[in-house]
Amino acid sequence: MVKNKLLILSGGMDSTTALYEFQDTIGLAVTFNYGSKHNEEETKRAVESCEELGIDHAIINLEDAFKGFESNLLKDGGDIPEGHYADETMKATVVPFRNGIMLAIAAGLAESNGLDKVVLASHAGDHAVYPDCRPDFNGYMSKAMHTGTSNGVGIYAPYADISKEDIANHGTLLGVDWNKTYSCYKGGPVHCGRCSTCVERIWALRHLDDTTEYLDTEYAENLLREKGEW
Amino acid sequence: MVKNKLLILSGGMDSTTALYEFQDTIGLAVTFNYGSKHNEEETKRAVESCEELGIDHAIINLEDAFKGFESNLLKDGGDIPEGHYADETMKATVVPFRNGIMLAIAAGLAESNGLDKVVLASHAGDHAVYPDCRPDFNGYMSKAMHTGTSNGVGIYAPYADISKEDIANHGTLLGVDWNKTYSCYKGGPVHCGRCSTCVERIWALRHLDDTTEYLDTEYAENLLREKGEW
Repeated sequence: MVKNKLLILSGGMDSTTALYEFQDTIGLAVTFNYGSKHNEEETKRAVESCEELGIDHAIINLEDAFKGFESNLLKDGGDIPEGHYADETMKATVVPFRNGIMLAIAAGLAESNGLDKVVLASHAGDHAVYPDCRPDFNGYMSKAMHTGTSNGVGIYAPYADISKEDIANHGTLLGVDWNKTYSCYKGGPVHCGRCSTCVERIWALRHLDDTTEYLDTEYAENLLREKGEW
Repeated sequence: MVKNKLLILSGGMDSTTALYEFQDTIGLAVTFNYGSKHNEEETKRAVESCEELGIDHAIINLEDAFKGFESNLLKDGGDIPEGHYADETMKATVVPFRNGIMLAIAAGLAESNGLDKVVLASHAGDHAVYPDCRPDFNGYMSKAMHTGTSNGVGIYAPYADISKEDIANHGTLLGVDWNKTYSCYKGGPVHCGRCSTCVERIWALRHLDDTTEYLDTEYAENLLREKGEW
């Protein structure tokens, strides 16, 4: 098969599922280190998954570009909030235009490598908090990439309209071992179980074989039960 | 006056003219080091101009992001072609989606700094060779930035429809000393006079007080005379 895709791979559940799904047509997977608290743990998983599947992988250091950015997700930002992933407090974890920046660099790299699709694994649940995960943004950004490159690079966002639970089910069928993915915003060696992405992860995997080790699972279960989501 | 603008400042003629024109409303000027042969000389001029006008200035190192890119403009790329700036050979100097990448980072930085306009000083003559300087690209990218940021950041491209000669005339009236700007793609301490940007610079300044030192001016004059542009 023709390899025409560049995948933005964080090492989390969504992009690792895409790595498995499109492994035969991915010419390059790219992981960005933008100075977040959890980049290091994520990147380890991204490296391992690419090695396992034999996919070319580039790691790009963007710490200098993000040093003037305001976000609790970054190493020099405030504490990571605990709680539900759709809460207002999660706005503190927005890194301004992060997806726009990753997509723009991916577009240039795709053109340089003769690839014309950038795969972005953001999902419907991301829209609530992150402006640069919304369908309108993806549409305009894809058109900007298409008109701004010589070979008409575009965005392919296969999970834009499905939930994280759908991705969890889909990835399980594809053979993803969830313990080889990483989500926790706090960035420790073991998932905290209390930050928004841990809570979302626990929710998405609640009916599946969740091999992840968590420091705490009761907090998320109680929170999700209260909201009728368990 | 309210400072609402972030200027992408290379240290060349166009963005330095914009620095002078919008100095009262620029909250931050940003220079990107993307590993080009001429970044170092450009950046020196950008630093000096910002110091002279008392404008906050950030320099962002993107060398790691561009290391996998194909372009003769980059340090590890091939030789810079000599000749006219609208020639086909100039395509070797395209850095894939460079403006898209600079604009995306600028959008995130603008949001982080409470600014909502990113000033891009590309001009009508850039469209011939660079896909990411064209009006269509600017329009879609501005919409992507607007929908992808919380404070609706947009692109302001005041010189998109005018020529480099127009910018030269305009900048002269604003008090720009052209010797304090840098253009040469070869990146030497003295402008070569033969690469496409030097030829374009010599053309744009031919009726003005061009204080620039060039290694050669005859080459450009002869080339421009042949084309009826002198």
